[in-house]
Amino acid sequence: MNRSISLDGEALPDKWYNLQADLPSPLPPYRHPGTGEPLSPDDLAPLFPSELIKQEVSRERWIEIPETVREKLGIWRPTPLVRATFLEEALGTPARIYYKNESVSPAGSHKPNSAIPQAYFNAIEGITSLTTETGAGQWGSSLAFACAHFGLDCRVFMVRISYDQKPYRRTLMETWGAEVFASPSNETEAGRKILAETPDSNGSLGMAISEAVEAAVGDENTHYALGSVLNHVCLHQSIIGLEAKEQLKSVDEKADVIVGCAGGGSNFSGIASPFVPDRLSGQDIRFVATEPNACPTLTRGKYAYDYGDLVGVAPLTPMLTLGHSFVPAGIHAGGLRYHGMSPLISALCKEKIVESVAFDQGSVFDAALLFARTEGILPAPETAHAIKGVIDEANRCKDLGRSECIVFNLSGHGHFDLTAYQKFLSGDLVDSELSEDDLKNQLESLPAGPTIDG
Amino acid sequence: MNRSISLDGEALPDKWYNLQADLPSPLPPYRHPGTGEPLSPDDLAPLFPSELIKQEVSRERWIEIPETVREKLGIWRPTPLVRATFLEEALGTPARIYYKNESVSPAGSHKPNSAIPQAYFNAIEGITSLTTETGAGQWGSSLAFACAHFGLDCRVFMVRISYDQKPYRRTLMETWGAEVFASPSNETEAGRKILAETPDSNGSLGMAISEAVEAAVGDENTHYALGSVLNHVCLHQSIIGLEAKEQLKSVDEKADVIVGCAGGGSNFSGIASPFVPDRLSGQDIRFVATEPNACPTLTRGKYAYDYGDLVGVAPLTPMLTLGHSFVPAGIHAGGLRYHGMSPLISALCKEKIVESVAFDQGSVFDAALLFARTEGILPAPETAHAIKGVIDEANRCKDLGRSECIVFNLSGHGHFDLTAYQKFLSGDLVDSELSEDDLKNQLESLPAGPTIDG
Repeated sequence: MNRSISLDGEALPDKWYNLQADLPSPLPPYRHPGTGEPLSPDDLAPLFPSELIKQEVSRERWIEIPETVREKLGIWRPTPLVRATFLEEALGTPARIYYKNESVSPAGSHKPNSAIPQAYFNAIEGITSLTTETGAGQWGSSLAFACAHFGLDCRVFMVRISYDQKPYRRTLMETWGAEVFASPSNETEAGRKILAETPDSNGSLGMAISEAVEAAVGDENTHYALGSVLNHVCLHQSIIGLEAKEQLKSVDEKADVIVGCAGGGSNFSGIASPFVPDRLSGQDIRFVATEPNACPTLTRGKYAYDYGDLVGVAPLTPMLTLGHSFVPAGIHAGGLRYHGMSPLISALCKEKIVESVAFDQGSVFDAALLFARTEGILPAPETAHAIKGVIDEANRCKDLGRSECIVFNLSGHGHFDLTAYQKFLSGDLVDSELSEDDLKNQLESLPAGPTIDG
Repeated sequence: MNRSISLDGEALPDKWYNLQADLPSPLPPYRHPGTGEPLSPDDLAPLFPSELIKQEVSRERWIEIPETVREKLGIWRPTPLVRATFLEEALGTPARIYYKNESVSPAGSHKPNSAIPQAYFNAIEGITSLTTETGAGQWGSSLAFACAHFGLDCRVFMVRISYDQKPYRRTLMETWGAEVFASPSNETEAGRKILAETPDSNGSLGMAISEAVEAAVGDENTHYALGSVLNHVCLHQSIIGLEAKEQLKSVDEKADVIVGCAGGGSNFSGIASPFVPDRLSGQDIRFVATEPNACPTLTRGKYAYDYGDLVGVAPLTPMLTLGHSFVPAGIHAGGLRYHGMSPLISALCKEKIVESVAFDQGSVFDAALLFARTEGILPAPETAHAIKGVIDEANRCKDLGRSECIVFNLSGHGHFDLTAYQKFLSGDLVDSELSEDDLKNQLESLPAGPTIDG
């Protein structure tokens, strides 16, 4: 009967878990995109508050969550861990499936877990305004929500084609008080330049990053915020896995497999990282990251230094990458359309601690429909990649007659993604797979500079 | 810190509370729309299963919730009761505000609380298919979700203008496996007749009801389901208030004021009815139902027998009504655009147990924005009427320096209503208030037949 395992509000973690403390070897440093030299904290100061820069490079295992941040996270946290009994029944699997329901946040995903502390650390250092970019809008709306709570102005550069196609996400950001610009915009030099050349540009995440960064560095009261990839974002997301561990313990469960989808890596890192020390100390626990065939960073990317953005102004980052100039096909899982991957998750893949698997869109939406019709929740297309991975694991358990405990992160709901469902239901979903030739060409575009040892 | 008061899954109520047991006087009977004679259970048999017909007229105080229904309700229930500390802070009120968060259901509102038992009682009596109508889509999507769980086919007649304007809600229903028809449709005699006369008809809830009823009575394996107004629907919704009472008790609170919005009356009845016995036994507790100025059924309607539908094929129902031919202005709170009101809530208003207040749309959306920016959740436009009522009560407490406990039902989220928010934010929201003359004309159209004594 008790499918949902709640956690008392008082049990909300008071420290984040920092995976950097337990990596078999330290992460290679970020490097300057121009010089190739390791970045210093000063290089990041125009963009981020000092506390976040400290977190980015810290190797402390536990980092305290400020009380004010805990209070705001308490608006929706702790999130429930739910036993997916109806999905298990439909699959006829002996596996026990649990999902950590991050879709219950106001913005509908795990993203506010990092938006709240980012807004907080900026606010206490006197910053009055944040800029960011957003594609599908999950991160932009989360930051808008967080800024409303700390009295910060929020300016979001939203890729123009999403701005036009996803007016609901835009309205959500405006409801929370953010200003939203279709990017390329007239607000920045970069935007004006692009518009002068291509007045009807659809925009891209790379362009939007350039605009958001420019809008931040030009004003000392303004900083920039990023919603994934970086270590401090993964740190904030560790609260997902920390809660899940407590909840599993409360019902005498131990995870055998942890599954999550991976775009920039923040939600996967959030559910997985607190379980990594158990694996390192000998527990038999697997980590499975899932991604689309159309953007197979983990399964087919190269571990190398590459730019974080399209145009090469962002730092050289040690990560799995498909090449910074790669523009993935327009699949509906917008959050999984990124050429690179969090350095932390990339390192875990390199160490073979994390496995990865890629899926086509059709099988992913089949999984989403089965989940919606059994467990009720309509998952985001990104999240549906995790569900597809879970179903495959549960079917493996069925074939082998094994009663394993599978835990996955339900990173977000799909309430703003129904166009994708409509296309799937009407048979109009277009799929795409990166060809060998395209991959080869992409990887040849990797910067010639520094290499990662080993 | 502990804003959210959870309830253990084991504590999910095992009985519904039936307000009919405690009404100061029994409800007047439904009457046949043609003859004016009291309806017999047999009159309802082509539409509803026998258990629901029994519940409709039962005066038993407690009615058992079948274990299978409890199990399915357990997908999202018990729902949290949350202390709205950030809203309190923004208002500077000494009042303590709590909201019962019904938006966490898969369909995003309280509606599945009745859709699940309705689907269940039909399924166990051998029915294989349900029909219903839907306006904005909250009820249709809830029934689609419930039918997916009991292997029932589900056909939804959706008012054409909503079908065209709200494709997301339609896709949600289809994702859960329902067939959705724009009404008027070619599926029924009624629909074909209307289309022959007005091929480009926008449809109306009255037309959609006619189609859904016709599609049900023509087939012995098919029944019809209604999402509000009726006693058995209010019965199912009592689970909201029953849980809230337990949750309040667990933190040593006693409600001074209960607030909810009222369209057909089901969510208001759900939060309020379990507290009515406390009032009847002398506790000082107020009940405030809120509604739009554009459809002021409670504040300006007449307590009389009237048809439940526009064309007069539905039973004569003893209720507060604006006249069955009233077509409210196209405000965005679609769920509050009904000419009548649940007989139960109407009776409580008549007995002056329930107070009512009507608001204009602008002040309602102001309240919604304040709530979204403080508590995070974007409320449905219907729910925002409750929030406006709560803010007024909290401000009264502030003026009088009274620390009252205000409890309201957060009946649903507004993720599929962002067009309304966009209109409000851009200043394009059109408001409307029913004029005295129009009201007079409407009330003159009331059927001449039976009157309610007293």
